[in-house]
Amino acid sequence: MTDQTDQADQTEPIGPADASIAPRYAGIATFARLPRIEDVPRADIAVVGVPFDSGVSYRPGARFGPAHVREASRLLRPYNPAQDVTPFSTQQVVDAGDISANPFDLSEAVAQIQQAATELSADGKRLVTIGGDHTIALPLLRVVAEKHGPIAVLHFDAHLDTWDTYFGAPITHGTPFRRASEEGLIDMHASMHVGIRGPLYSRDDLRDDERLGFAIISSVEIETEGLQSAIERMLARLGDRPVYVSVDIDVLDPAHAPGTGTPEAGGMTSRELLAMLRALRNVNIVGADVVEVAPAYDHAQITAVAASHVAYEIISAMTPSTTL
Amino acid sequence: MTDQTDQADQTEPIGPADASIAPRYAGIATFARLPRIEDVPRADIAVVGVPFDSGVSYRPGARFGPAHVREASRLLRPYNPAQDVTPFSTQQVVDAGDISANPFDLSEAVAQIQQAATELSADGKRLVTIGGDHTIALPLLRVVAEKHGPIAVLHFDAHLDTWDTYFGAPITHGTPFRRASEEGLIDMHASMHVGIRGPLYSRDDLRDDERLGFAIISSVEIETEGLQSAIERMLARLGDRPVYVSVDIDVLDPAHAPGTGTPEAGGMTSRELLAMLRALRNVNIVGADVVEVAPAYDHAQITAVAASHVAYEIISAMTPSTTL
Amino acid sequence: MTDQTDQADQTEPIGPADASIAPRYAGIATFARLPRIEDVPRADIAVVGVPFDSGVSYRPGARFGPAHVREASRLLRPYNPAQDVTPFSTQQVVDAGDISANPFDLSEAVAQIQQAATELSADGKRLVTIGGDHTIALPLLRVVAEKHGPIAVLHFDAHLDTWDTYFGAPITHGTPFRRASEEGLIDMHASMHVGIRGPLYSRDDLRDDERLGFAIISSVEIETEGLQSAIERMLARLGDRPVYVSVDIDVLDPAHAPGTGTPEAGGMTSRELLAMLRALRNVNIVGADVVEVAPAYDHAQITAVAASHVAYEIISAMTPSTTL
Amino acid sequence: MTDQTDQADQTEPIGPADASIAPRYAGIATFARLPRIEDVPRADIAVVGVPFDSGVSYRPGARFGPAHVREASRLLRPYNPAQDVTPFSTQQVVDAGDISANPFDLSEAVAQIQQAATELSADGKRLVTIGGDHTIALPLLRVVAEKHGPIAVLHFDAHLDTWDTYFGAPITHGTPFRRASEEGLIDMHASMHVGIRGPLYSRDDLRDDERLGFAIISSVEIETEGLQSAIERMLARLGDRPVYVSVDIDVLDPAHAPGTGTPEAGGMTSRELLAMLRALRNVNIVGADVVEVAPAYDHAQITAVAASHVAYEIISAMTPSTTL
Amino acid sequence: MTDQTDQADQTEPIGPADASIAPRYAGIATFARLPRIEDVPRADIAVVGVPFDSGVSYRPGARFGPAHVREASRLLRPYNPAQDVTPFSTQQVVDAGDISANPFDLSEAVAQIQQAATELSADGKRLVTIGGDHTIALPLLRVVAEKHGPIAVLHFDAHLDTWDTYFGAPITHGTPFRRASEEGLIDMHASMHVGIRGPLYSRDDLRDDERLGFAIISSVEIETEGLQSAIERMLARLGDRPVYVSVDIDVLDPAHAPGTGTPEAGGMTSRELLAMLRALRNVNIVGADVVEVAPAYDHAQITAVAASHVAYEIISAMTPSTTL
Amino acid sequence: MTDQTDQADQTEPIGPADASIAPRYAGIATFARLPRIEDVPRADIAVVGVPFDSGVSYRPGARFGPAHVREASRLLRPYNPAQDVTPFSTQQVVDAGDISANPFDLSEAVAQIQQAATELSADGKRLVTIGGDHTIALPLLRVVAEKHGPIAVLHFDAHLDTWDTYFGAPITHGTPFRRASEEGLIDMHASMHVGIRGPLYSRDDLRDDERLGFAIISSVEIETEGLQSAIERMLARLGDRPVYVSVDIDVLDPAHAPGTGTPEAGGMTSRELLAMLRALRNVNIVGADVVEVAPAYDHAQITAVAASHVAYEIISAMTPSTTL
Repeated sequence: MTDQTDQADQTEPIGPADASIAPRYAGIATFARLPRIEDVPRADIAVVGVPFDSGVSYRPGARFGPAHVREASRLLRPYNPAQDVTPFSTQQVVDAGDISANPFDLSEAVAQIQQAATELSADGKRLVTIGGDHTIALPLLRVVAEKHGPIAVLHFDAHLDTWDTYFGAPITHGTPFRRASEEGLIDMHASMHVGIRGPLYSRDDLRDDERLGFAIISSVEIETEGLQSAIERMLARLGDRPVYVSVDIDVLDPAHAPGTGTPEAGGMTSRELLAMLRALRNVNIVGADVVEVAPAYDHAQITAVAASHVAYEIISAMTPSTTL
Repeated sequence: MTDQTDQADQTEPIGPADASIAPRYAGIATFARLPRIEDVPRADIAVVGVPFDSGVSYRPGARFGPAHVREASRLLRPYNPAQDVTPFSTQQVVDAGDISANPFDLSEAVAQIQQAATELSADGKRLVTIGGDHTIALPLLRVVAEKHGPIAVLHFDAHLDTWDTYFGAPITHGTPFRRASEEGLIDMHASMHVGIRGPLYSRDDLRDDERLGFAIISSVEIETEGLQSAIERMLARLGDRPVYVSVDIDVLDPAHAPGTGTPEAGGMTSRELLAMLRALRNVNIVGADVVEVAPAYDHAQITAVAASHVAYEIISAMTPSTTL
Repeated sequence: MTDQTDQADQTEPIGPADASIAPRYAGIATFARLPRIEDVPRADIAVVGVPFDSGVSYRPGARFGPAHVREASRLLRPYNPAQDVTPFSTQQVVDAGDISANPFDLSEAVAQIQQAATELSADGKRLVTIGGDHTIALPLLRVVAEKHGPIAVLHFDAHLDTWDTYFGAPITHGTPFRRASEEGLIDMHASMHVGIRGPLYSRDDLRDDERLGFAIISSVEIETEGLQSAIERMLARLGDRPVYVSVDIDVLDPAHAPGTGTPEAGGMTSRELLAMLRALRNVNIVGADVVEVAPAYDHAQITAVAASHVAYEIISAMTPSTTL
Repeated sequence: MTDQTDQADQTEPIGPADASIAPRYAGIATFARLPRIEDVPRADIAVVGVPFDSGVSYRPGARFGPAHVREASRLLRPYNPAQDVTPFSTQQVVDAGDISANPFDLSEAVAQIQQAATELSADGKRLVTIGGDHTIALPLLRVVAEKHGPIAVLHFDAHLDTWDTYFGAPITHGTPFRRASEEGLIDMHASMHVGIRGPLYSRDDLRDDERLGFAIISSVEIETEGLQSAIERMLARLGDRPVYVSVDIDVLDPAHAPGTGTPEAGGMTSRELLAMLRALRNVNIVGADVVEVAPAYDHAQITAVAASHVAYEIISAMTPSTTL
Repeated sequence: MTDQTDQADQTEPIGPADASIAPRYAGIATFARLPRIEDVPRADIAVVGVPFDSGVSYRPGARFGPAHVREASRLLRPYNPAQDVTPFSTQQVVDAGDISANPFDLSEAVAQIQQAATELSADGKRLVTIGGDHTIALPLLRVVAEKHGPIAVLHFDAHLDTWDTYFGAPITHGTPFRRASEEGLIDMHASMHVGIRGPLYSRDDLRDDERLGFAIISSVEIETEGLQSAIERMLARLGDRPVYVSVDIDVLDPAHAPGTGTPEAGGMTSRELLAMLRALRNVNIVGADVVEVAPAYDHAQITAVAASHVAYEIISAMTPSTTL
Repeated sequence: MTDQTDQADQTEPIGPADASIAPRYAGIATFARLPRIEDVPRADIAVVGVPFDSGVSYRPGARFGPAHVREASRLLRPYNPAQDVTPFSTQQVVDAGDISANPFDLSEAVAQIQQAATELSADGKRLVTIGGDHTIALPLLRVVAEKHGPIAVLHFDAHLDTWDTYFGAPITHGTPFRRASEEGLIDMHASMHVGIRGPLYSRDDLRDDERLGFAIISSVEIETEGLQSAIERMLARLGDRPVYVSVDIDVLDPAHAPGTGTPEAGGMTSRELLAMLRALRNVNIVGADVVEVAPAYDHAQITAVAASHVAYEIISAMTPSTTL
């Protein structure tokens, strides 16, 4: 039924199911039709889902995000011409399934995610996580910071996600980067939000955000200053630090990502976002997430197609250069 | 802008906005276009929303249920021929807005709902609550049982909702009637589920359920035994006790209620459900809820129209008989 | 491009495009893939659209009904086993296109519809009209009553449509049968509503309705008394008069007809409706309409498929018996 | 990541992932969250997908049916009270993934399906197949008839599927049962269609169908004669032969199954269909399929939930009786 | 139930319901969760709905626009960083509910809107109106011109809306600016369309339009000349006149505003539109409307989110500068 | 019923139905409400549908594309200000209906399309074809090359469509331009892809593509280099050769074209695409297609509106210059 099994004892990475044998719409859905983690001896990069949305403040539903992005990722192909890499043959990429997280207890859920991510990356695997809501970024940052020290966080989002508490809860989808900053997980001189827009609760939100270590490229600046300029500012900010890339899909305009929980008009196009991610080709990405895909609002997989391409460009950027 | 204001000093109940002056699609949405609680001196029945869905185990989204049902309820009209009553002119019915509940803390949310419902019903008002997920039935049952003692619970649902715990949480949308039974809130000789169907976790689920005080009319029995027979069994079970009516909209088939969190094939039709509710005309209903409407899955308001009719038939059944 | 042209000089009726040559999804959409009126020398029955919805009181959109029903009617096939007739080969049925009606002036629109229907039926053609909202029934009844005298109106609907005025307008989608009764167009001893349900503005609505000449089979009676009993009551009421059949698609439950303007829970199933229409096999149907299909609310053509079958069963019932 | 692995060396069947550890929305989607065939030593029943829709004559899209039904089947639970069985603990049921079939060559696709089904069932496994369009029934019938001789086919469908050819193609989704009859695969005294309705191409279609060995219970007969009567006729027809159950989801009314390729108004309810399937409890089912689920037309998983329950009831009916 | 009441006797403006007490999805929907006009002693700006769509020439449905935009506006927050203002605390903004307009009589409807707007703005309140179709701009312009004399109209739209008559009707959604120009309501040297595109009925349409007093920035010019250039042309045209801003949401591309009545490909992005509106910060806006949101076509609130942001940016631009 | 008939004997081209007599939503749907080919004596340009999607490798459904684009094209108007032409009055444009193609046999279908297109264009008519999937480009190119010799192909698409075989099939929607190049149908020095993006199967895909005669303007280059630059490169490549324009609607971003079979994030906007097409004003276009519109995924006609504008701009570019 699969074309992966008979390759399992080879030393070459096992890639996606061969679309010339099994059509892309066929087969149990894994990310990009890659092998499951159980089906390979080892892996360099694990794509892992965190179906969890108990931290949202508006539309829930991102708990179905991992399954939805897996379905849309069937369309991905092996060669990425934009970065000139074949990300699945140069390194072993796998689908590690989903991390279970208690939907009724935010603290326990965060602990479960942290533990599972720690175990999964213990052997050096880098994780590309599919959310779930943005709450999950905190335990994931703890895991990478444990290994690498304070990390440059490159955060694509309509929102700052550096609120303090909401309904008394210190850890929600609006707070991961405040908590991370307070915990010393982020490099305060190299972190950045991209795509910010829309109203805030208070002018203090921006002051707090800067104090917590973030620079900002707003959505409208990408248009008025141009894409190339934004890329240069981004790369200058990141420098040569290890980088964690966190993409809240609502960084895209609702036209490009209707299936999300807190839509804001005036967002980036998917073309801009993918171009900025491709510019990370020579950056040291130590982990990444793509979050806030809410399938119940996603007509025709518009959002999931974008999210799967986001993950693909990040994995491509994480791919070692090599002669094909 | 409203046709209610100039009636406010009359002793007659203030009814819905007059559709011959303000079209039904016009005006800020209240349930059935009724006055808000702030706009009348007193009320007999309060329709109140509880936008809360942190207790769900599958599809979330019922937090948007109250707003969605309010929109669909614009279609309701003042005279109910099926029960031959004019529920909004015989008694004062109001929209009491929404109860705020902490989305991140189930215990606090339950306490908030209980307190708000207690306050709202302190003067004798009966509540018809629009959920929200089924978690909210527990605090609402506490409030009515506090006043009336153990209550006959008439529970329409595809599911028993008498599970024990889930992920360690004792109070979720799958457990309200077990907790209520354990707390002595329900009359174990007069309570009943109607519309049950679909797979369970274990055969023990049924044994536990019976032990907790519930009889069952399954969905398929309504078809094989006939609607009239089901109505008679229901009325016989309820006897003359005070009754709390709890309608999980998933008691309807997914064809009749796609917009819900845990759909099960093989359900009741809306015609059957409304007929059973009308049969409660002479029953002493002390409170009611309509829960689990999840708008993100509700095409063309199919589910919300049904839910608004459910609430309307219940309110009609709660209406004192009178010469029109 | 069409398989009709070369048959045009034959004396046999020209039927639908041959699905074994042109797939059913191919070709410019006409009702049931029948020839246009311009393409045949004469016709017995004309299916004609009236894209008009300026008479609605809630959701508009039925102006797109004719186009939408035409698309769904591609699925109809030539032989109707339920009535054992081949409606398109025994008589010439055509698609007469759409009647233009002024969307900004109800009076002018009604006059335009009346005139166009008069012209179209001048040679004895019977009309099966696809709405549009129910306003259009009034001019259509005027045309058939002009020819046949007071008509037995068989009206399938959730609503009575015998209101008086709304916002001062005497002719809207809620009033056609009151106006028709007042104008003496209907046979007050043979007319009937089927499928009525839902709240009314006042108890007087029912009294007025009876006075205007209508008997009622309610939606729930079809369930409690059984389909056969309802059919017998219907046929007894109609007797042997000439009958006009008017089907507001909202007679179906919103599950079976989400795409309509004034949905009411608790409706008929499409199986019940089609069975009642088939029972008209020996009734003298002099005209018919299917109205209130609002495509913007019609997921997956659920409503349009039902509406196209409704029209098909009516046309079948209008088909002379013959040896096939 | 899964709770199945550590059970793999036990002799007990491995059941679905434990929902108290991994929420039902979590994990890579397999049917009913069952183990994949690679993860167990042997299996009694294999659920297998055939993502193929090149045989359809109207709306395509059933190629995405297996993935869609898998997603909806997450809601299934281990105990079936309607049949009082635990189908996944009494026997080993697995998800065998998808059979690859050439989308551009019907003959090759049929051969591929036949070969894969032969191999999969070589060790005595019974197959429950998720389509895909109805074309796939022919190769599946060949495989069971090879083993059991002519089979009693119990066919739920709006359509006869005993056409001859269409556009010259002898094998499409409209022809499997004619070809099967011609090939001697079916027991002509024990086969039956249930749920038939809607227009046909010709009166001969019915004559041919009877000659090919099928009796019919039409959709409307289930209503007019009653569910129990239909069940008795069905069981009498099947007798004690080995039975192949083929469920075209369009046997349901479009209200209950909008997501399909050839919808017909006037269909069965999901409650009726499930009840008829449960009545097969003591029938010798040697294979089954559920076909024609077209996700692009399936709002809120209405159709897929029904289809997953259909498969579940069939698997339950295939379960040996045992003391729990 | 609301956090507004106890502030009512304060002199500070009453702002939106506090999202840290009542979640944003909770509470009866008012624009931006602002107080109703009945709940405050006075107001500076009133947001008022006009649920009216009897003037449309294609897809109707904008009558549900006000309710839909109110729902989406729950996401707005108090501080607007793009303009550095807190529009709801510097001035009193309220939701004035909906103006009732006769759906069956365009002339009466226009008179009703004009009268209600006159009354509402009698004390100096400025109105931000949510449509409804574009017909409503004419009575609204009459009201502002009555007070301010000929007004600079800044009109964002795909269409000119300076047609003459349609079906004999002089006042429809295609004619407001022709009528306004003829009535001398607009400043012919300062008025402008932005975002124009798509086919016209005749080349004369452009000639007439210029003669009526409008300059044009087309949609494609914003791309080819750049956003900053467009802003400069706009501000130069407006000069220092009092300005009425009229935003037909179809000025956005259908990707950014699917939920509208007359979509045209090739439109503006929401980012461009919001940026142009923010540039009005120092312009004297005396009134505004946002029209043509048709919810039945609006998946995932894409259009309503954009429309609510449009209103928010306009209100922000109308906010007096102040030290926060 | 139509306003075309009485013009039929005039020498002026017969244009679209007059929208001031028949509203645009009225009438049997033809492209742009143009006359059918049967209704005019001769034609210069024929718009013809090819409802065929048996060549797709992922989401099917484009067989419903022609009907869907016809419906959306009702919105087109007679004068195109962007090109300053009235395309329907300067030349006779007609709707030639649909070409029937065998859905079960790719080879026969291609032959059918080729033959029908040959016949249709025998008298010099140029064809603008509405797909259908991209397979249809091959027979259409054969027809134009037969007449004009090797053609400059201007191909807008996310994908190269120069694959070799897929599942052994040499002719699918992924291969038309490889086959065309191999058959010598295209001018290898003047052909070009515009809008390319997304992952490929192999780096060789690009090498093969160049070898087959195509230059590329990628989607992101249009953004980084600017629209004007892209237009200049395009025109330089085409030179003065006869050009065939083939627009796969997936060249647009999924935001602008969700209703398609193989969506890729990062695409062009509809504004960019229309601008590039308008730049063909002085190019010798000998034929064109617009393909891959899959209605089942097209919310609110977003995709079909774009596709109808694409066809309209192409027809406008094919219009002879003339004094209006």
